[in-house]
Amino acid sequence: MILTVTLNTALDLTYGVPELVPHASHRVSDISERPGGKGLNVARVLSALGHETVVTGFAGGSTGAVLRELLADLPSRDAAPAASGPAADSSPVADTSAPVSSPAPAPITDALVTVAGNTRRTIAVVDRTTGDTTQLNEPGPLVSADEWSALLARYEELLTGADAVALCGSLPPGIHVGAYAELVRSARAAGVPVLLDTSGEPLRRGIAARPDLIKPNADELAQLTGSRDPLRATRDARRRGAHAVVASLGPDGMLAVTPDGVWQASPPAKVLGNPTGAGDSAVAGLLSGLVEGLGWPDRLRRAVALSTATVLSPTAGDFDRAAYEELLPRVGVEEHTTAA
Amino acid sequence: MILTVTLNTALDLTYGVPELVPHASHRVSDISERPGGKGLNVARVLSALGHETVVTGFAGGSTGAVLRELLADLPSRDAAPAASGPAADSSPVADTSAPVSSPAPAPITDALVTVAGNTRRTIAVVDRTTGDTTQLNEPGPLVSADEWSALLARYEELLTGADAVALCGSLPPGIHVGAYAELVRSARAAGVPVLLDTSGEPLRRGIAARPDLIKPNADELAQLTGSRDPLRATRDARRRGAHAVVASLGPDGMLAVTPDGVWQASPPAKVLGNPTGAGDSAVAGLLSGLVEGLGWPDRLRRAVALSTATVLSPTAGDFDRAAYEELLPRVGVEEHTTAA
Repeated sequence: MILTVTLNTALDLTYGVPELVPHASHRVSDISERPGGKGLNVARVLSALGHETVVTGFAGGSTGAVLRELLADLPSRDAAPAASGPAADSSPVADTSAPVSSPAPAPITDALVTVAGNTRRTIAVVDRTTGDTTQLNEPGPLVSADEWSALLARYEELLTGADAVALCGSLPPGIHVGAYAELVRSARAAGVPVLLDTSGEPLRRGIAARPDLIKPNADELAQLTGSRDPLRATRDARRRGAHAVVASLGPDGMLAVTPDGVWQASPPAKVLGNPTGAGDSAVAGLLSGLVEGLGWPDRLRRAVALSTATVLSPTAGDFDRAAYEELLPRVGVEEHTTAA
Repeated sequence: MILTVTLNTALDLTYGVPELVPHASHRVSDISERPGGKGLNVARVLSALGHETVVTGFAGGSTGAVLRELLADLPSRDAAPAASGPAADSSPVADTSAPVSSPAPAPITDALVTVAGNTRRTIAVVDRTTGDTTQLNEPGPLVSADEWSALLARYEELLTGADAVALCGSLPPGIHVGAYAELVRSARAAGVPVLLDTSGEPLRRGIAARPDLIKPNADELAQLTGSRDPLRATRDARRRGAHAVVASLGPDGMLAVTPDGVWQASPPAKVLGNPTGAGDSAVAGLLSGLVEGLGWPDRLRRAVALSTATVLSPTAGDFDRAAYEELLPRVGVEEHTTAA
């Protein structure tokens, strides 16, 4: 089982509007609602890859209740249906583009800790004329000291059954900035490989606790290290305490600086689409590859193919499975001969 | 008791952002949540004026549940506290600016019909740098034929105890465009004075059923009649079937064309502020004045003072009671000597 931790889960709303005009009134033409927060997105992709996943973090209030209902529906809603018997062929909802080799979606178990406050909403306002997105993110509920203690207890318990853990996203109000460092230390003490995907001061503090892997993007790396040079910044991030650093460089793919070597992985071609969730798909790719015992080149191939297939998906945050399977063998991975 | 009907209730969210930049990501700095839809806003003002009110219409899903919780809290939250005994003077929550003559807030009774769909959200994004508001309105739940029948039955039953009824706002998906005409006819058959406050085709159809009063603004009047001349358009609207028409002309006050005469009411001075809810406050002023047996000049004075005090309130949709009481005797009302 892979554990993902989302301290600031979100009910993600997408609003389509014909055209976004500041200071005007808009009728929303289409709405979608899904459970969000980076760790939940990672879990959705892990499930589609056939990995059993447990999600923890905080959820509360009426928005938290809706999030948990949607989460309960997830494996059957967002992933390819299992090819189980002849009925699947004639079902009107069967995804006929999914090859028979696709694994059945694995269950996602809700181990969220209930809090008194309301889970935040995020709203992506999509201008249907230009395709551009304007994002509005609520800050999240104020989490009390008791609620944080409850999370720590739940986390320790879940670690005993975990093959790997991903710590994902921003911190809600009330959670101390060293929270991720604390969670990294617990995972390492339990001998569970831990990936940290956050930014700013929580990332800086978390790295010092020596996570197995971090996956910053170019902006997060620059904020952390002060450098925009990918190789220099990635090496610097590693010196700060992370055992391995995989920098996601958008259309340029990924740069991995690890104890075993340095690799650059590149998608076969630049693609146009919506990058929302591409980083979360990369995390799922890296983590599933680690649990399956793949080497770095294959983990990176999977991560790049998944994030590219996420950019190509018509739904933000989902990946296009046919594109993923087509891209996977075509991702280029090159080893750097310089020392890590 | 005054009945207000809100077929498309809303959970009104206000998001403050430091500055709204299209296609950027924003952290929402402050959030407020309140029960909305025009008829609920009218009920809130009627309650503050001391009028017992019953609200009906549709509510459903998780957003509908939140709306009903907030509605249950309303009279004690949004209105001035009752001056009941010596404890009020020393209470830390007593509104010391409210003169002792203010009526106690009257109860608002929830008689909403539950529907399967989700009550819509509306989001007002307020740019805290400029003060400008960008509005995003969900369309509302799809209402079934059975749900509409349930509303009609509830409405007929409530009419038997109503002194007046206000029919307010847009229609949710699934409701036929002649719905307000049907509700107007029932009210008239029951002998209950009916005010219709909507726009577009539902207004056009509703007027033909001969409501006692409509309260269009300048845009709604122009859309209905094709004329931007206030007196001409208001008279035209009356000829279409409304017994009386009160046109709200923003800073120019209100123009009433009635069977008893034509009046123009003007605020004592132009004011700056947020006009959200000013029209709903005007409806509450007109309806409460009718039920109290006031003549047209006094009803108009109240409507203009209430809507001006709503523009002046720091919270969108609330009215500033001290401003209202100060403005009331200063609203100018002039009778036109030409025939209606």
